[in-house]
Amino acid sequence: MSLLVVGSIAIDSIHTPTEVRENILGGSATHFSYAASFFSGVRMVGVVGDDWQQEHTKLLTDRGIDTSGIEVQEGGKTFRWTGKYHANMNDRDTLEVHLNVLENFSPVLSEEAKRCPFVFLANGSPSTQLKVLDQMTGPQLVVADTMDLWIEIERDELKKLMQRIDGLVLNDSEAKLLTEEENLVRAGQKVLEYGPKFVVLKKGEHGAMFFSKGESYVMPAFPTPDVVDPTGAGDSFAGGMMGYLAQQNNFEPKTLKEAMAYGTVVASYIVEDFSLDRMKEIGREEIDQRLGQYRQMLSF
Amino acid sequence: MSLLVVGSIAIDSIHTPTEVRENILGGSATHFSYAASFFSGVRMVGVVGDDWQQEHTKLLTDRGIDTSGIEVQEGGKTFRWTGKYHANMNDRDTLEVHLNVLENFSPVLSEEAKRCPFVFLANGSPSTQLKVLDQMTGPQLVVADTMDLWIEIERDELKKLMQRIDGLVLNDSEAKLLTEEENLVRAGQKVLEYGPKFVVLKKGEHGAMFFSKGESYVMPAFPTPDVVDPTGAGDSFAGGMMGYLAQQNNFEPKTLKEAMAYGTVVASYIVEDFSLDRMKEIGREEIDQRLGQYRQMLSF
Repeated sequence: MSLLVVGSIAIDSIHTPTEVRENILGGSATHFSYAASFFSGVRMVGVVGDDWQQEHTKLLTDRGIDTSGIEVQEGGKTFRWTGKYHANMNDRDTLEVHLNVLENFSPVLSEEAKRCPFVFLANGSPSTQLKVLDQMTGPQLVVADTMDLWIEIERDELKKLMQRIDGLVLNDSEAKLLTEEENLVRAGQKVLEYGPKFVVLKKGEHGAMFFSKGESYVMPAFPTPDVVDPTGAGDSFAGGMMGYLAQQNNFEPKTLKEAMAYGTVVASYIVEDFSLDRMKEIGREEIDQRLGQYRQMLSF
Repeated sequence: MSLLVVGSIAIDSIHTPTEVRENILGGSATHFSYAASFFSGVRMVGVVGDDWQQEHTKLLTDRGIDTSGIEVQEGGKTFRWTGKYHANMNDRDTLEVHLNVLENFSPVLSEEAKRCPFVFLANGSPSTQLKVLDQMTGPQLVVADTMDLWIEIERDELKKLMQRIDGLVLNDSEAKLLTEEENLVRAGQKVLEYGPKFVVLKKGEHGAMFFSKGESYVMPAFPTPDVVDPTGAGDSFAGGMMGYLAQQNNFEPKTLKEAMAYGTVVASYIVEDFSLDRMKEIGREEIDQRLGQYRQMLSF
């Protein structure tokens, strides 16, 4: 188990322009872990309430994910999120959030978790992310996700975090908010100045951009006509990326670029159905096949 | 002169978040021709008023563009457009439009123009575009641009046009408007059903998508930190694409893809300054150099 993820585990209700799905499995750590499991062993740390269903755990363990770090809070309820997608399936509104057990979650890592060489701090408050980092014993690669809320209310903590991580993943509007730069290339380059060695800027249906001191590039999303539910695309992207890095056991520029491509391809699957439904149907073979199509698409 | 373009010639006033430039050269045919001139001879057809300055003509003829098809209407004024860009430099509002001589423009082609094998019908009313097509004597490849206005007020004429052209170029919001599909892959594929053999869907700062019966792919924009004025990016893209096709004298899938890449690279230069200012500084060498960077960026 070389890859650790700490993040949210959620029960989602999703409204798309054509369908509503209530009480389906979601959360950043969930999507990340499932995507990463096609490449590498994953140790998942998070919290749920006693409404948590064993079938969810089974879904994860069946993919070889170590769920021993999922804390069950007796008398508590699992984090719930209800979201509604716009007609373009790229923008969304949050209709309801119930933090529940997530509100006072303070992750305590096991000895095994502390020694994981690859770490992903999925979206959570920077202060919680820092607390996780404080417990780690010399990780090789730490990548964190963040979001607009933390940029607005915990900017100082986020700045501290950025000086201690290798990579930051955030979306385009968040990068603009963080840097006050409207041009995405400038925004990405400016985030580097805060500390991370590389920055991945997610653009939803338009793909992702990569920035490091040495290089910057764009990778478009893999075009799919079947966008059913985009929830979890960003976390699945990160899962595919980090899973591949953990599997390769290095993060050279060449490997990072391949990892970005794998992340893109995995994210193109997750959006094709609700929750993990599409992911359950595929294996590494389908991922590699689509990676081949993607490489072909980008060569001229 | 194997490539013909019929379109607008404009005097633009551009408001960006940081600067205002009044009375600068613009127009779809202008941007297209200048971009195409790095690859192929271009014959430009359009109309201007007697306020037209000879220095503009010289700028075009210096690049080898045949301007004999530019009609000067005595007593008339050149088409004027004033636009204001949003902070993101991707969205814009039209502040003023004075059609002037463009209002009753009915292009009459010379014998040489009629025989051009490669034709680009830049943005204009579909009925005017059809009148141009009626004058052509067996072109090899006809590509047209269109816009939301024509989709709304001349949909029937546009449908007729689409059955007579090889390729249609339009932007993402226009494709959604035309097809009533929100997913861009579906939208692109649906446009094919109207008649064109291929469709190029422009996504501004996010690049362009290509659709034909046999294949579909996405090409991201070449990332530049220096977006000064995006005016003309779409027409320059089309100019680079068509110029390359005319130069290669074929439109095989492989050539089309290379042409899409060249269009992308040329468009990345035009946005780096107002009007044609950046384009005046570069040559084919710079374009090929950036094409190399672009190819490198997309390989993994």
